[in-house]
Amino acid sequence: MAEPTPEDSVGLVTPQVFRHRDSFALASGDTLPQFDLVYETYGALNESRSNAVLICHALSGNHHAAGFHAGEEGKPGWWDNCIGPGKPIDTNRFHVVSLNNLGGCHGSTGPTSEDPTTGQQYGPNFPTVTVEDWVRSQVLLADHLGIEKFAAVVGGSLGGMQALRWAIDQPERLHSAVLIASAAKLSAQNIAFNEIARQAISSDPRFHQGKYRELGENPDLGLMLARMIGHVTYLSDDGMRQKFGRELKSGQFGPGRDVEFQVESYLHHQGRSFSQRFDANTYILMTRALDYFDPARDFGDDLPAALAAARCKFCVISFSTDWRFSAARSKEIVNALISAGKNVASAIIDSEHGHDSFLLEIPRYFDVLSGYLNRIVMEIDDAP
Amino acid sequence: MAEPTPEDSVGLVTPQVFRHRDSFALASGDTLPQFDLVYETYGALNESRSNAVLICHALSGNHHAAGFHAGEEGKPGWWDNCIGPGKPIDTNRFHVVSLNNLGGCHGSTGPTSEDPTTGQQYGPNFPTVTVEDWVRSQVLLADHLGIEKFAAVVGGSLGGMQALRWAIDQPERLHSAVLIASAAKLSAQNIAFNEIARQAISSDPRFHQGKYRELGENPDLGLMLARMIGHVTYLSDDGMRQKFGRELKSGQFGPGRDVEFQVESYLHHQGRSFSQRFDANTYILMTRALDYFDPARDFGDDLPAALAAARCKFCVISFSTDWRFSAARSKEIVNALISAGKNVASAIIDSEHGHDSFLLEIPRYFDVLSGYLNRIVMEIDDAP
Repeated sequence: MAEPTPEDSVGLVTPQVFRHRDSFALASGDTLPQFDLVYETYGALNESRSNAVLICHALSGNHHAAGFHAGEEGKPGWWDNCIGPGKPIDTNRFHVVSLNNLGGCHGSTGPTSEDPTTGQQYGPNFPTVTVEDWVRSQVLLADHLGIEKFAAVVGGSLGGMQALRWAIDQPERLHSAVLIASAAKLSAQNIAFNEIARQAISSDPRFHQGKYRELGENPDLGLMLARMIGHVTYLSDDGMRQKFGRELKSGQFGPGRDVEFQVESYLHHQGRSFSQRFDANTYILMTRALDYFDPARDFGDDLPAALAAARCKFCVISFSTDWRFSAARSKEIVNALISAGKNVASAIIDSEHGHDSFLLEIPRYFDVLSGYLNRIVMEIDDAP
Repeated sequence: MAEPTPEDSVGLVTPQVFRHRDSFALASGDTLPQFDLVYETYGALNESRSNAVLICHALSGNHHAAGFHAGEEGKPGWWDNCIGPGKPIDTNRFHVVSLNNLGGCHGSTGPTSEDPTTGQQYGPNFPTVTVEDWVRSQVLLADHLGIEKFAAVVGGSLGGMQALRWAIDQPERLHSAVLIASAAKLSAQNIAFNEIARQAISSDPRFHQGKYRELGENPDLGLMLARMIGHVTYLSDDGMRQKFGRELKSGQFGPGRDVEFQVESYLHHQGRSFSQRFDANTYILMTRALDYFDPARDFGDDLPAALAAARCKFCVISFSTDWRFSAARSKEIVNALISAGKNVASAIIDSEHGHDSFLLEIPRYFDVLSGYLNRIVMEIDDAP
């Protein structure tokens, strides 16, 4: 018997699939002959179809953002604390759409899918995908769902980059963009961490130049290392100190060599678990999309010029101890939006949890988010 | 023909070897039947033998700190900018002693040495070595050299931890301890980065549980990854931005998948070069010594209590953008020294170069260091 569903949950959800059966040209110059996007929706679409919110996921996210899948009642979606009845992204008010991005490994067309032109799995031959491509594929999904204009496009980290790209590329199709713990482009340090993660994967001998699945293998150790690197950089030094300190996994310091700190054991566990559930080619593809993202590139590094096309309102949220996507990077976006004469609200949230904060229930963060989205509801209702 | 030696260089130097032929008990409970320490000296020891300065190296350092080796005239020692005639550690005034630590891979007894009890290379069976062990072995070297009391024990990063341990464990044998970009213990984040580096090495299939040399192999890829991780964390985000920005190695963004950023190419080069010259077992051993270091552990985490035994003066230097051993960690040491009633000078140096700053010629840093050491000379000369 299933466990009772909490009252503030969207309850049991069933993923759906949008099957795009036309060819799709990518920014890389490559073309996909067709693609699928797996998605979920929570809350009802209103009659005027004006209350849809698109959730864009980050590096390792997927479509299952809220509620539960049958048989997995103990495992809510990755943003279940934020999406649901009465929650900041309130499913009593909004129709929430959450998808797995193109190139993903949770049901959407990606490296683990079959290439219809060859009948073989794409594997390492899946083409490079950019944030622009994601936005264009999400527009096709919106068309399919009959959503002409999103009330909000919301994303954290890489998800915020998609929201920013939506604002620039599809100015008439969103009322607001909510960018959380994001950046207008990665820093050299961020690219370096991503490259080390990719190097960890590709130098695993079980990676086989990306053809591991054909050979019935998996680069577990490389993926584990990649996740460990990511994990440490998503936490703050202070947060780790509070969570782990220098506690030993067991026993005391002293003679012998088998001393292990709690933090080591935690990272091993996180890394191992990730390597079992995430595809290595997808990880490489997603980090490349992160690295390449830079909307100002085509405007001579002039971010306000890149943002000139945007028509939506913006909400930009960052966290005090996030050093991977620091508050300073959000401030760059805010300043560029102000220079470009856009409507922007912003908040820096005090949190000890680093980049991971965007996934956590932090009262002031959720207050800012729900306050902003509640105003959006009123604006939409007032619209002619 | 050798290139001319710069006037401010100590010139050609020849490493020497201290052969300790008694057994040496380690903090781990293990015993080494004997050991060698390779070292260099620069500048003359004065008649009263009071002007000796000990240089303690960091994670990947060695004994060759200044001058040149015959046949390698283009490659000065790792701290040649700081040690020499007229330089901050002035060889016209000081007799500088620089060694390769026990467990190292540059000539001192370590994993690549032969275990005299088995006739086999130690490899992964080399015992765990702690900072306390290093200090005790350095004391034996000082005895061998007839140095009763160092004018200063100087070190950056892990080297600073040795200087701190000298102050606590050998209070009568140093006049001053100079701790640069160091910490009284690693944070959980630092331990995590070290563990990821160790994991990268040990999960390389060519590591063979540390027995790679017996099998004629080397875990190049693991060492490369370990170095890449270290390197990124030793630089600052700002410093990397200034050095690399988001410049591409070649060509333009656009269709195709072979985009590589300058920072990736730089890290690959650094990593590959390191994997050719550093022993993997030594890397693991050195990072473990870093992790375990925690002089307050035996005093109920009371650092001032741990420092009570010290008699020397202290100089504590840190750098504004160092996030691996931040200025806040040096401040902890300074505050504890003040609480313990010790004589301490300290400076935080503005630098964009992160942890690597301690190896660079930064005018204010070198002014602080030379100013402090010049006063030490006067104090020693005034001593009865």
